[in-house]
Amino acid sequence: MSHTMGGNSFPEMIMRKRDGGQLSAEDIHTFVGGVKSRTIQDSQIGAMLMAIWQKSMDNKETMMLTKEMMTSGEVLHWPEEWTGLVVDKHSTGGVGDKVSIPLAPALAACGCKVPMISGRGLAHTGGTLDKLESIPGFNIHLSTERVKQILQDVGCFIVGQTETLVPADRVLYAHRDITATVDSVPLITASIMSKKAAEGLNALVLDVKFGKAALYKDMDSARTLAQSMVAVGNSLGIKTGAVLSRMDAPIGRCVGNSLEIYEALECLKGRGPDDLNNLITSLGGYLLQMCGRAATLEAGQKAISEVLMNGKALQHFQEMLQAQGVTADISRSLCSEKAEYFNHLRRAKHQTELKAPDDGTVLDIDGMTIAVVLHKLGAGRTKPGEPINHSVGAELLVDLGQQVKKGQSWIRIHHDCATLSSHQHADLQEALVIGSGEGFQNNARVVEFIQPI
Amino acid sequence: MSHTMGGNSFPEMIMRKRDGGQLSAEDIHTFVGGVKSRTIQDSQIGAMLMAIWQKSMDNKETMMLTKEMMTSGEVLHWPEEWTGLVVDKHSTGGVGDKVSIPLAPALAACGCKVPMISGRGLAHTGGTLDKLESIPGFNIHLSTERVKQILQDVGCFIVGQTETLVPADRVLYAHRDITATVDSVPLITASIMSKKAAEGLNALVLDVKFGKAALYKDMDSARTLAQSMVAVGNSLGIKTGAVLSRMDAPIGRCVGNSLEIYEALECLKGRGPDDLNNLITSLGGYLLQMCGRAATLEAGQKAISEVLMNGKALQHFQEMLQAQGVTADISRSLCSEKAEYFNHLRRAKHQTELKAPDDGTVLDIDGMTIAVVLHKLGAGRTKPGEPINHSVGAELLVDLGQQVKKGQSWIRIHHDCATLSSHQHADLQEALVIGSGEGFQNNARVVEFIQPI
Repeated sequence: MSHTMGGNSFPEMIMRKRDGGQLSAEDIHTFVGGVKSRTIQDSQIGAMLMAIWQKSMDNKETMMLTKEMMTSGEVLHWPEEWTGLVVDKHSTGGVGDKVSIPLAPALAACGCKVPMISGRGLAHTGGTLDKLESIPGFNIHLSTERVKQILQDVGCFIVGQTETLVPADRVLYAHRDITATVDSVPLITASIMSKKAAEGLNALVLDVKFGKAALYKDMDSARTLAQSMVAVGNSLGIKTGAVLSRMDAPIGRCVGNSLEIYEALECLKGRGPDDLNNLITSLGGYLLQMCGRAATLEAGQKAISEVLMNGKALQHFQEMLQAQGVTADISRSLCSEKAEYFNHLRRAKHQTELKAPDDGTVLDIDGMTIAVVLHKLGAGRTKPGEPINHSVGAELLVDLGQQVKKGQSWIRIHHDCATLSSHQHADLQEALVIGSGEGFQNNARVVEFIQPI
Repeated sequence: MSHTMGGNSFPEMIMRKRDGGQLSAEDIHTFVGGVKSRTIQDSQIGAMLMAIWQKSMDNKETMMLTKEMMTSGEVLHWPEEWTGLVVDKHSTGGVGDKVSIPLAPALAACGCKVPMISGRGLAHTGGTLDKLESIPGFNIHLSTERVKQILQDVGCFIVGQTETLVPADRVLYAHRDITATVDSVPLITASIMSKKAAEGLNALVLDVKFGKAALYKDMDSARTLAQSMVAVGNSLGIKTGAVLSRMDAPIGRCVGNSLEIYEALECLKGRGPDDLNNLITSLGGYLLQMCGRAATLEAGQKAISEVLMNGKALQHFQEMLQAQGVTADISRSLCSEKAEYFNHLRRAKHQTELKAPDDGTVLDIDGMTIAVVLHKLGAGRTKPGEPINHSVGAELLVDLGQQVKKGQSWIRIHHDCATLSSHQHADLQEALVIGSGEGFQNNARVVEFIQPI
């Protein structure tokens, strides 16, 4: 009954982490190398992930894990003259979060280069790529040569993860997903930051959400993750800052892929809802400040706000659509002042409006409840690779803090199935909280800025 | 970034254990079923094993895990008229531990049925099967029909694990071995007790060792494991007791496969060393008491001692050898009063005697150090399935507490390589501790009996 059989260092490093010790740079190099070359057994990966979940990792270990994961594949490099300009944003995900779609072209309009590699939705979290794919012809698979050209010409792109970037993360994430080890600060940090670092960034802003519809319900946990990612990003030479933002109600008034493209385009035309505008200008302004394109946060926010209002961000978006495969006609039509969006975006067969059950003030609209119902209606996927229905979604017809009358429509559900079930109807009505007074939290508000270290 | 994807219960039960919760009977049934049917992913097995290592299991969970593992394969059943007589012993392993070899026939000579399924050695721990295989012709692979017949005719057999018994343990053990999760009380308990329970036992005695050459260095840890196994055994309907025994120096005077067969045969002829005799009579006596063949522990010990002295145990051993494939000639010759053992057992090409460096009292002989050197000389294996050299071993020429003179031989190493390296020589000399006075612990002494619950 021996503890180890000697010779193989995987059991030794698992034991070290199991007992709460610190993994060395060499341990982490060997572990990630084993993951990449498939020389480590899957059960050893599972045991190591669980040991890390249980005992965590310090900033140094997390940084080394991030670095090894990043260099497990291709790392993008950009022309020297762009130094300081290459920026991106990452969000931990929220219901109705379409921030990336207006933000990337807004940053490009401010002179930045935004090589945005984004993800698909899973479970109740939407994915930027799914939203963009509701635009006919939009191509998220582009060669490295092609994206370099787009960055040169347009200033931004939004594409999917490729096989060559951070292959170790794909393997580890697949194992984390089935071993109850997703929710670990060092593992989340390494997964996110390795992918962002592989983009060859100079500056990065992180939107770490907390609240009822977020990964972390409380602000302290969100801050811990944000601080971990900020520490790792800066130690890898990327100027990295984070914001903590509240995520209870959906962001903006639209949830669902086609509907969110509609809302993002409205935002790019200067007609976005306040909470969405605020989040975009906060994140973009912070990035402009960090990369030195704005003297202060306020100046940065103002610059972003301007390019949303004056059509410059919209112009970059239209160019990006064309560069990524959308026809000139459709791009122009979607970006025109009075676009008939649903000539191009698919609209669900049915719309059902729900009515407020009482008079009063809208105190809360539970984003997670709405997301769960939309997921069941086909807006999201349960397993990677499943098809989704881009037309399914919800439009909020009221804002937080608004006075409503009994019988007034408060949400419009877009669905392809004939009717909503009584259960779905009841769940959705539970998402609406009506009361008296001022007891509501401003939605999507940035409540804290975490500075680069 | 979702925690689970729903639908699959493996991540849910891993999460439950990860968070320190209790697994239900259904969880454990599903887990072991998944292991057996290979429907659980290896990384999920690794994560679950690490979660169990970290958070442990209570007696109820451990009992359910043991039961599910036991019923993952064939469970042996015996004729009704043997009820109460079917007994076995398990040891956590020690250097020079050949107890099973005289004990099985001694118990058979006392009227018991001993269906002993034993293991091979790995790393520094010898295996009873390897020892027996140094006898030409000894066959450890017998059919269920054949072992039933031997138990009927002879009263005991010692065979290897089969493919049909406790298949889930083989899978789990292979994963534990590479994931640093061997040393977990519930996992050790379930592994040992599932295999013993599958033998269809009425009573079982466990020899749990502690000390420098044992799995557990301290007595409290050994007691914790013993109590866990005793609780599980009794709750499965097997009268189970345990002893805690000290394991610093080798048991007896011989270490190594052929040499231990020689010493076991001497013991069966009433000429065994005191420490070995004491351990055999303590374990055997306790079993006779537990299964009601002896009124008291002392009476049981006396009965075992008698069959070792009067040749009855030897007679059963000779019959067992023949039943398990050894020729009548070799069996008779090995069991004769003045056997020329090394006419049949292989002797190493070289013997090297080491000399005491000083006058004084032998205070300690470090069994683990000796085992490590013998392992390097070929007595043991590093990986399952490797061949071993049965002739490599060591004979102690002095006892603990004995006065020795400088230059007196204290150990004889049997080796096939031409010479011992200076490093091996130095290591072995370090194993001998000479001093003045009485500062030594009696070896292999049973220091505590843990009663059936």
